[in-house]
Amino acid sequence: MQTIQSDSYPIFFDNSITQLVSFVKQGNYSRVFILTDENTGEHCLPIVKGQLDVLDNFDIIEVNAGEESKTIDFCIGIWKMLIDFGADRKALMINLGGGVITDMGGFVASTYKRGIDFVQVPTTLLSQVDASVGGKTGVDVDGIKNIIGTFTQPKAVFMHGDFLKTLPARQILSGLAEMLKHGLIVDTAYWDKLKTSDLSLPSIELVHRSVEIKNEVVTEDPHEKGIRKALNFGHTIGHAVETYSLMNDEDSLSHGEAIAIGMICEAWLSNKKIGLPDSELAEISQVLNGLYPHYKIKESTFPTLLEHMLKDKKNQNGKINCTLLKHIGQYSIDNNCTDDELCDSLRYYAGL
Amino acid sequence: MQTIQSDSYPIFFDNSITQLVSFVKQGNYSRVFILTDENTGEHCLPIVKGQLDVLDNFDIIEVNAGEESKTIDFCIGIWKMLIDFGADRKALMINLGGGVITDMGGFVASTYKRGIDFVQVPTTLLSQVDASVGGKTGVDVDGIKNIIGTFTQPKAVFMHGDFLKTLPARQILSGLAEMLKHGLIVDTAYWDKLKTSDLSLPSIELVHRSVEIKNEVVTEDPHEKGIRKALNFGHTIGHAVETYSLMNDEDSLSHGEAIAIGMICEAWLSNKKIGLPDSELAEISQVLNGLYPHYKIKESTFPTLLEHMLKDKKNQNGKINCTLLKHIGQYSIDNNCTDDELCDSLRYYAGL
Ligand SMILES: NC(=O)c1ccc[n+]([C@@H]2O[C@H](COP(=O)([O-])OP(=O)(O)OC[C@H]3O[C@@H](n4cnc5c(N)ncnc54)[C@H](O)[C@@H]3O)[C@@H](O)[C@H]2O)c1
Ligand SMILES: NC(=O)c1ccc[n+]([C@@H]2O[C@H](COP(=O)([O-])OP(=O)(O)OC[C@H]3O[C@@H](n4cnc5c(N)ncnc54)[C@H](O)[C@@H]3O)[C@@H](O)[C@H]2O)c1
Ligand SMILES: [Zn+2]
Ligand SMILES: [Zn+2]
Repeated sequence: MQTIQSDSYPIFFDNSITQLVSFVKQGNYSRVFILTDENTGEHCLPIVKGQLDVLDNFDIIEVNAGEESKTIDFCIGIWKMLIDFGADRKALMINLGGGVITDMGGFVASTYKRGIDFVQVPTTLLSQVDASVGGKTGVDVDGIKNIIGTFTQPKAVFMHGDFLKTLPARQILSGLAEMLKHGLIVDTAYWDKLKTSDLSLPSIELVHRSVEIKNEVVTEDPHEKGIRKALNFGHTIGHAVETYSLMNDEDSLSHGEAIAIGMICEAWLSNKKIGLPDSELAEISQVLNGLYPHYKIKESTFPTLLEHMLKDKKNQNGKINCTLLKHIGQYSIDNNCTDDELCDSLRYYAGL
Repeated sequence: MQTIQSDSYPIFFDNSITQLVSFVKQGNYSRVFILTDENTGEHCLPIVKGQLDVLDNFDIIEVNAGEESKTIDFCIGIWKMLIDFGADRKALMINLGGGVITDMGGFVASTYKRGIDFVQVPTTLLSQVDASVGGKTGVDVDGIKNIIGTFTQPKAVFMHGDFLKTLPARQILSGLAEMLKHGLIVDTAYWDKLKTSDLSLPSIELVHRSVEIKNEVVTEDPHEKGIRKALNFGHTIGHAVETYSLMNDEDSLSHGEAIAIGMICEAWLSNKKIGLPDSELAEISQVLNGLYPHYKIKESTFPTLLEHMLKDKKNQNGKINCTLLKHIGQYSIDNNCTDDELCDSLRYYAGL
């Protein structure tokens, strides 16, 4: 499969572990650090370690698994370890993990000694098709997600299908929502292909197409001024539902599960407001509702959900703007939606 | 005086407070934050505040004075205040203070929401001629200076001579060392001018020339690969003496005081190794020794000083490299010096 050339760095798909090893060797790094979490340390590190062992010198930094680790306090811990290890400006950081590891590792590396090289080796579907492309790094402060970060590109990204074999089904579904979104916003053929594929373990070819799409969008608009908003489809309502669930449910929705709900609601808005055909709305609802468990949203929660939407950084001056679809494969940005419309779209989902 | 155009941003000298106000107005910022420390809050804020009062909306964030504040922990405090104030991506940060404030404020702004706009209003001589030009931001972790930071340019820098009127004499001397260095490395006429000026309160014209020189050097070499090393003159030995003094003296040397010592020693090395004329060595020693109090360096401390030099991030593979002078106004980088030579240069200083 073809290597995707982003802005300033390559995204490898074929023989990517071999590519990683030769990248590291050619880089002449003074030292190599691998950042993992407990799970990627157990499942993914063995896959790369066997081959990296040709290097003289590498150290492993492991953090607890989960979003709770993606904080500035963990960054301080990692910076201190780098200091203790004597890491200089010619050190390399390999971020081996899901979005938590690639986001946090990218931030740590982009600020240590004003920036050392880092590469991303994403091990979840979400981090492969989303987090590791686009140059956003970030960590949480006081529970506010990604409030601190930088825009810094990795030196390279290495995609490897085998990592997904140990990934829990729910994590697969979470990444899948972004892939389905990629089809819905710009590529009908890709959407059609996804519909008919075995999605319990998406193939590396499908990942490749998603990365291609995300990469095209973010390269055109690195600082989120225009077309990058296409990626927000499903996210205005989805984020609100995700936040609500995080605060209220014992077993809260994953990002992808919430986005799937958001995409159904926003497809309904697309149909109501900008002419997405009835048949396409039906198809979207059916595919998403078939893949994702149905979630109960009560009328009484609507005001809270609207509040979350208003607070979303993407919405300004008290207006709620959604990215919608004219057709499957054709997005439309900055559609102002009223509270009534938004509530009706939630009712549509609740009634499925 | 002419505005200096750096890379991507202007450095104002004339009517700079008026310029600041019109910059802020034109920027259409959602919110304006001014970062100060106790001293700049007392002495400098009144100078800008009277004019900034035309704005609807600005908030002041004040930290304790001194290097002890330039830590990641203080950054977390400032980030949390920005969160509490509801600062969005269109907020502006005005860093009003010495190098501690411009370095830390630059780092906080360059990472908050992946980067908001900031401007530098340097209020010490050192921050005017050095810290606020070059795009380096940074803070300390675990007592290691500037270990975390970014390369991020401000949107503008505003220089104002009046700030220096309340600055203690020792702080003036600290910044002056960098100005003298600018003359010594690239501009004989500027060095000659400095020699004959009243240096108890350097004029804004002198500041202007120093900023011009630093700006030219860093614009040519933003990531410290080559000519930026010219700025290291006096710093290999000076940093070692500074570190030693910080760790051992009750009333430790300022950065500039240590650099003045370093420049004398490295002028001696220049004479010994690459032919700086005797007369020029004598002149440099006389000027610097006249301006700065003499500091006692005992033979017994030489081994410790050499160790500090070896640990300096600029020295690799166990070799100590100095930037030296062929002539006053003509630098030469990467001169490898032996332990014996370095000790002899310290003896020269001790014997003055
Ligand atoms: N930078 C961006 O543009 C961007 C985009 C989307 C999401 N994100 C961020 O990504 C994060 C979510 O990503 P995520 O879902 O990958 O989270 P994650 O890193 O927490 O991974 C999810 C879980 O899977 C485990 N895991 C990872 N790889 C595994 C493997 N191969 N086998 C078994 N278990 C494995 C992890 O230990 C973790 O428990 C969020 O913090 C989000 O903000 C960033
Ligand atoms: N970014 C760079 O390229 C760069 C270059 C050189 C130094 N630095 C950094 O700059 C810092 C040192 O700078 P500094 O000497 O300006 O330190 P500083 O900011 O601590 O200022 C020195 C003292 O002067 C006080 N002060 C500031 N302005 C005043 C005024 N107008 N009147 C009265 N008092 C005033 C301060 O409160 C402080 O007590 C160090 O942390 C150093 O690492 C950075
Ligand atoms: Zn998403
Ligand atoms: Zn200096």
